[in-house]
Amino acid sequence: MAEYKVRFDPNTEPVVVKSGTLIIEAAKQAGLDILQPCGGQGRCGRCIVQVMDGTVRHRSSLRLSKEDIQAGYALACQSIIESDILVRIPEQDKIERRLMSDRTALEIEIPPGYSPEYKQSLRRFSIQLSPPSYEDQTDDLTRLKKEITLKLGYRNIFIPLGLINKISQALRLGNWNVTIFLHIGELDDRMKYVQLVDILPGIIAEEDPLWGAAIDIGTTTVTLWLVDLMTGKVHAQVAEYNDQIRRGEDVISRIIYADKNGGLTELQQLVLGTINELMETACKRVKFHRVKPEDVYKVSVAGNTTMMHLFLGVPANNIRLSPFIPSFNQAPIIYAKEIGLKTHPFAIVDCLPGVASYVGADITAGVLSAGVDLADQLTLFLDVGTNGEMVLGSKEWLVTCACSAGPAFEGAGVQSGMRATTGAIEEVWINSNTYEPTYRVIGGGKPRGICGSGLISLLAEMFITGLIDKAGNLNPSLPTNRVREGEHGLEYVVVWAVEAYSGEDIVFTRVDVDNLLRAKAAIYAGFLVLAQSVGVPLESTEQVLIGGSFGKYLNIEKSIQIGLLPDLPWERFRFLGNTAVKGAYYALLDKHSRKRLDEIASKMTYIELSADNSFYEAFMSALFLPHTDLSKFPSVEKAMKSIQYSETI
Amino acid sequence: MAEYKVRFDPNTEPVVVKSGTLIIEAAKQAGLDILQPCGGQGRCGRCIVQVMDGTVRHRSSLRLSKEDIQAGYALACQSIIESDILVRIPEQDKIERRLMSDRTALEIEIPPGYSPEYKQSLRRFSIQLSPPSYEDQTDDLTRLKKEITLKLGYRNIFIPLGLINKISQALRLGNWNVTIFLHIGELDDRMKYVQLVDILPGIIAEEDPLWGAAIDIGTTTVTLWLVDLMTGKVHAQVAEYNDQIRRGEDVISRIIYADKNGGLTELQQLVLGTINELMETACKRVKFHRVKPEDVYKVSVAGNTTMMHLFLGVPANNIRLSPFIPSFNQAPIIYAKEIGLKTHPFAIVDCLPGVASYVGADITAGVLSAGVDLADQLTLFLDVGTNGEMVLGSKEWLVTCACSAGPAFEGAGVQSGMRATTGAIEEVWINSNTYEPTYRVIGGGKPRGICGSGLISLLAEMFITGLIDKAGNLNPSLPTNRVREGEHGLEYVVVWAVEAYSGEDIVFTRVDVDNLLRAKAAIYAGFLVLAQSVGVPLESTEQVLIGGSFGKYLNIEKSIQIGLLPDLPWERFRFLGNTAVKGAYYALLDKHSRKRLDEIASKMTYIELSADNSFYEAFMSALFLPHTDLSKFPSVEKAMKSIQYSETI
Repeated sequence: MAEYKVRFDPNTEPVVVKSGTLIIEAAKQAGLDILQPCGGQGRCGRCIVQVMDGTVRHRSSLRLSKEDIQAGYALACQSIIESDILVRIPEQDKIERRLMSDRTALEIEIPPGYSPEYKQSLRRFSIQLSPPSYEDQTDDLTRLKKEITLKLGYRNIFIPLGLINKISQALRLGNWNVTIFLHIGELDDRMKYVQLVDILPGIIAEEDPLWGAAIDIGTTTVTLWLVDLMTGKVHAQVAEYNDQIRRGEDVISRIIYADKNGGLTELQQLVLGTINELMETACKRVKFHRVKPEDVYKVSVAGNTTMMHLFLGVPANNIRLSPFIPSFNQAPIIYAKEIGLKTHPFAIVDCLPGVASYVGADITAGVLSAGVDLADQLTLFLDVGTNGEMVLGSKEWLVTCACSAGPAFEGAGVQSGMRATTGAIEEVWINSNTYEPTYRVIGGGKPRGICGSGLISLLAEMFITGLIDKAGNLNPSLPTNRVREGEHGLEYVVVWAVEAYSGEDIVFTRVDVDNLLRAKAAIYAGFLVLAQSVGVPLESTEQVLIGGSFGKYLNIEKSIQIGLLPDLPWERFRFLGNTAVKGAYYALLDKHSRKRLDEIASKMTYIELSADNSFYEAFMSALFLPHTDLSKFPSVEKAMKSIQYSETI
Repeated sequence: MAEYKVRFDPNTEPVVVKSGTLIIEAAKQAGLDILQPCGGQGRCGRCIVQVMDGTVRHRSSLRLSKEDIQAGYALACQSIIESDILVRIPEQDKIERRLMSDRTALEIEIPPGYSPEYKQSLRRFSIQLSPPSYEDQTDDLTRLKKEITLKLGYRNIFIPLGLINKISQALRLGNWNVTIFLHIGELDDRMKYVQLVDILPGIIAEEDPLWGAAIDIGTTTVTLWLVDLMTGKVHAQVAEYNDQIRRGEDVISRIIYADKNGGLTELQQLVLGTINELMETACKRVKFHRVKPEDVYKVSVAGNTTMMHLFLGVPANNIRLSPFIPSFNQAPIIYAKEIGLKTHPFAIVDCLPGVASYVGADITAGVLSAGVDLADQLTLFLDVGTNGEMVLGSKEWLVTCACSAGPAFEGAGVQSGMRATTGAIEEVWINSNTYEPTYRVIGGGKPRGICGSGLISLLAEMFITGLIDKAGNLNPSLPTNRVREGEHGLEYVVVWAVEAYSGEDIVFTRVDVDNLLRAKAAIYAGFLVLAQSVGVPLESTEQVLIGGSFGKYLNIEKSIQIGLLPDLPWERFRFLGNTAVKGAYYALLDKHSRKRLDEIASKMTYIELSADNSFYEAFMSALFLPHTDLSKFPSVEKAMKSIQYSETI
């Protein structure tokens, strides 16, 4: 049998191993400790190494893309050494980052060829007016309007009362040189109109920043990007919990709260408080410029339909009453002072268009930034939170629906569930022999509970390892003390009390399983109904784009294993992060993108699932792991077989 | 010598008089007491009687029109009995009313053929919408807009944020029947746009009133008419002092006050307080309907340019700084809530267009309601208050200017001056033999002072009777103790202390004379400059239309005698009362009138007198009684001669 030299450092002596040895074994021999949370099953991807020289055979290449393999990446627990090799072990945090890479902070691309002159609806002009005299007694307002028409060609000029106040002083302080800020809008019939947003005395250099903000109001998190509209550059990105959380975790409880006396105003004030604080913070983060919130002249806002209603102080109660009709999908453009947004008082607030009560501007903005509406390929776009909103389509057509997934994926309705914050178990692996779990905790430290991604991971592992069957029943006959009779029937102990932050066992119960099954079934059924509605098989989906903050932490493999995502090759999935704020950013910057957004909203066909019989059927079939029809999930079938096989060995 | 029978009552015995007897003498003989405040000089018109049968010879027919004479009216002190006659003595209050008739409450003519459908920019429609369903998930706002476009044909629909709040509830409460209130406006290029003003659940009967208000904000008085826009009927007319008076009597002192810290807001709140109270009062006065201020959906506002600035909270300081440029002449249309006007919060507030800092919307509205812009005849339109604003023109052209007359005509700057309220002497006659005055006091009772019309009257009488010469010098050598040396030189005692309310003499001093001379000279010079600017002689003026509340009390004869008004035949003068509020009423009711107003404002050529050399010259020449050039005032020359003649007798 051949022997190979294995080096983990070019400067140290190699270890010598026999052919057929795994890299992980060679590493142990070299005294190196590589983490294997999944216990060497090739499923967690944590033991990744880079083979710099020599060849290995991949027993499994889960978690590796073609590009990864070409670059020499390999799973240490699955790679059989077939020659002398040089192996580099990446630092642990680099592995973490790499695994999360395409799920984390969005690359911000400034639209190519961006120019405020051609693409920005908010324009700044420095103009010189002729001063009045006894011969020319034109009043200040008319003088300004005439100049705007004459020099800039704009007509239909709207000037808010609050700015008429400022015109005379600005003209005189600037010695009849002023800088004006105009928002150019469009009426029906493509007729242009112009709103004056500000007037300042004197000339402003063209390259001076002109500040705008893109905002995504999530039910849980509000995200704000501060942007120089002149260059398109994002100068600050900040996010914070939506302060409305204290009055309800999900949209339904917020709508109910808003219906109480004073509730609407309170919720509006809470989210405005969050946004106004974010605006302050973002301004402070900007380097090389002094920016105040009052310098922000334009704001584009994405958010689900309920968030948009509450942001504008509009009652949202019909959103939760059949037939679920919102007051508006497209709010009119307003001035910031109308709602108390702390930007320039006359900053243009553009609330982006939504499609329906449960498919809001966050989704249209997501479709925009993900480019679904321009895609040649059949694309499935997905945003999972309390609701699972999804869009299927391409440049030809778009269909959308929202599934009331419930808050299970946000950790609510699950006994040990929690939001994805410090102390949450976000990923779990279970050894298929011992049924002992390994887990990763956000921020390290002792676990406090399990967040959405952790729950999906846990459910998948329990299913794959046989701890639960396809109907979600726990198997009490396995050789582990972690499956036990609890208060609500059988339960699995994920963390023993001594290891838990609270000092109490963290358990996963049958009730939890059922909640998660319903949540994932709703989403998968949504996919099916969308596909059926346009008569295409779900499997023909060429790309799956996952947006939303939750999507960032979604594990595709495990999501497929529980039947949440369709069983498609992994390379078809892409995590895009917060696509809503990115869409808002595009719309903020570029009027063509803004128009695309209108087209997306009007083009998208909304399917109300509660009125769709096929949905209930699809939902019932999806209440199993991964599905009643296992042929829809060939990769899961294969994975289960491989585990059964390894158990047999 | 012939004898005639004179009956004052067909049922009583006649008195028998000789030919040549005056009616007043016959009356005395019959034991009837006819008032003669002017002492039988034929100048006051108070002894008017109607000759029902028989003939008289008119020694003088001052105060009588041709129509009067044809109808048999005669001055008892000037009519010589020439046959048996039957004479009717009108009741005193009827005489008063008759004398004031064309100066008092304006006849309100509803524009002929008025129909809100064709002439009103504020329209009310009851519409039925199809309810949403799972099949039709259109949001409420879009549903409403679509319906407006489909059923009513309007596009470019603006809906304020505060109404988006109401739409969903109204639609559902009304079971998808709603009544909407739309304001139809026009952009440049005559492009129509529509503003939603309100939405109410259910159907409203077409004949139900639709309330609007026409407002004139005078520096001194605010007038408000409450109007049913469906019929054009004025249901209430109310007026009250502008509460801003407590912060300054005239526009200049208000502008200065507004420039102080907090002054602008205070003045805005003061006038809004006045208007809001008037609105309440007007609503309570309406008969047969229950009206609340919140039911008022549209407001048209006239007022001078300063009043308009303060009403909207816009700094007015450039109005008093050369070259006197206002911030605006035409404010944009706003919603009532933007300034805190207590109507419906989204009532359309249409501030009418002005021409210059000192020719405001009160003048354009006056021109509109007086019909100057449609006149075939060369017309002089005049509005005298603190400023004298005047317009000369016809349907061909219009020129305008404003003379800083000072507040003398409002009773300010004159020792015994006061506003035209209870206790003010409003008319004076002086006996040309005794130099004893007779006067009329507003509300009867003891006099407290002299108001503008009383001052003009007094000045004219003093001049005509020789108490002062043409330069305004008092004549100390006349046989009367009423001319005496006072604190500031010679003065005339109008009321002795015992007859005065205050218990102190009411006097008229040389300083007072000078103030009045300056005021009247400024106005007359304005007339001349206007006429000169277009190259027409002032005498060719075919009608003089006098608006404004002061005009109501102006005595033409005496105004001509002091050289305030040009010496034209009396029948060419017409008092129109508050032409500003009437113009606002037209503009409120009728969009064609509103458009005419824009045309008036843009067509009118404004002459800034402080930049006009000819004005100073004309002013200096007019500082005499009635003028340096007496040939300009032939009737005054004649009147003086007739008095000298009667003295000679």
